[in-house]
Amino acid sequence: MSKEKCRIGVVAPASRMSLEVAEKVQALAASLYPDRPPEIFFHPQCFASHGHFAGDDETRARAFLDIANDDNTDAVWFARGGYGSCRMIEAALRGLKEPSRRKTYLGYSDSGTLLAALYRAGFEAVAHGPMVQDILRDGGEVAIGRALAWMVDRAPKTLEPTVNGLNKTAAFNITVLSQLLGTPLQPDLDGHVLMLEEVSEAMYRIDRSLFHITSNPGIRRVAGIKLGRCSDITANQPNFAMNEEEVARTWCDKSGIPWLGRADIGHDASNKIVPFGSGV
Amino acid sequence: MSKEKCRIGVVAPASRMSLEVAEKVQALAASLYPDRPPEIFFHPQCFASHGHFAGDDETRARAFLDIANDDNTDAVWFARGGYGSCRMIEAALRGLKEPSRRKTYLGYSDSGTLLAALYRAGFEAVAHGPMVQDILRDGGEVAIGRALAWMVDRAPKTLEPTVNGLNKTAAFNITVLSQLLGTPLQPDLDGHVLMLEEVSEAMYRIDRSLFHITSNPGIRRVAGIKLGRCSDITANQPNFAMNEEEVARTWCDKSGIPWLGRADIGHDASNKIVPFGSGV
Repeated sequence: MSKEKCRIGVVAPASRMSLEVAEKVQALAASLYPDRPPEIFFHPQCFASHGHFAGDDETRARAFLDIANDDNTDAVWFARGGYGSCRMIEAALRGLKEPSRRKTYLGYSDSGTLLAALYRAGFEAVAHGPMVQDILRDGGEVAIGRALAWMVDRAPKTLEPTVNGLNKTAAFNITVLSQLLGTPLQPDLDGHVLMLEEVSEAMYRIDRSLFHITSNPGIRRVAGIKLGRCSDITANQPNFAMNEEEVARTWCDKSGIPWLGRADIGHDASNKIVPFGSGV
Repeated sequence: MSKEKCRIGVVAPASRMSLEVAEKVQALAASLYPDRPPEIFFHPQCFASHGHFAGDDETRARAFLDIANDDNTDAVWFARGGYGSCRMIEAALRGLKEPSRRKTYLGYSDSGTLLAALYRAGFEAVAHGPMVQDILRDGGEVAIGRALAWMVDRAPKTLEPTVNGLNKTAAFNITVLSQLLGTPLQPDLDGHVLMLEEVSEAMYRIDRSLFHITSNPGIRRVAGIKLGRCSDITANQPNFAMNEEEVARTWCDKSGIPWLGRADIGHDASNKIVPFGSGV
């Protein structure tokens, strides 16, 4: 994709973002690519507000389709997570047209619902990685630089270190994947290295979600599980007496899914890119 | 079951309970049935402790089987919820013997995992209703009295008011049912009136779980959904702008599942009995 100018469209399928965040990311992109700045278009919907969401379900679906179906856009970049993609996904899928298949899609957390659905629908350039809102994190410029380097140049250094284009891969937030299991959005992950991360959940919830994930017959056909970072784990009452790695190993052991160690992903600025499939 | 003496075995498949709770429930049972007090046996495992749980996974499974397979016990009463049934369910199912099929099983919340698995395995007297620990609630004696009246006499007044023995019914905690979908434990609820309740979850989580539940092809074949009480809802940031009934109606509407109104169940002393199937 090292063409003259990469055109990136930003949409917010879940929670809203601020104008300030958009300005910061625009400025950073201009400074990182002085000769060929990517063109970043923030759909006005990103700044809309409707209760919990960046606009109502219909508004968010339409904005997503505006960008996804636009012939002059190369990449769809999700603004942020929060919650809400599952409320617009059905309308979003219904409206997809041919140009949507030729694009890159990048996001994580709640956006995993969209990544799953698009990957299941055969889209070839779907990836788990930093979103616009990550600029607000400690070291957030690095995360944004990584996302841009992926979208603009497919820079290999942006990839999770074990992604090699030989093994199929996929990555999800643990809770978000759990909430897709047994629905028509559940992706086929046969033979994939499945990387999982979590944020702001108590250990008993992580344990329960991993029971759920590893008990699913489709998930049992993955090549193995790699655990990303589980950050900001909320208090467990009483103490759970196991950490997230012990929990993940337990469920791999019980389910017969190979435990493949840790993954360099998470709700933080170090969150590396994981393309879905073998599409490096 | 109005025989001379009902023998009830209590086991704790998730979190532990205290001796004090056991004593209170014994005393209440003696005062409610002065002429034919039910015999309540608290398995010592109820008071065991292992991290988050009432004993480790193997201990909890073995205790459950001690009671379920005992020929001299009429009812298996779950001590309380919390979290942990999904960690012992596989071993529990593996060890079930013939006498286990002739018993009543009563519980809710985390115990929904056991209710689902037993119902799926064809057990005929599985019911959603108060547990031993409910004695600690405001008005908890009423809940315990209701549970005993169900186990001892199958008293019709204990039933959720719309349970009539004509329509098949089932009841679950929303999160617990969500975490069973797409696993071999998911029960066949075709044609059932499905009653759902929740406690201590933020509205966005209730919304997400109802997306999950109503998107499942098996659940779409229920006769309809009735919403029990959603209590102690934790703060949503920002305000979700919909209450639990609006959320449930939205997902019924999107999925085509009939909305059947409210159900008289919940994490409180008024929690009525809902037998699984048409087994009144």
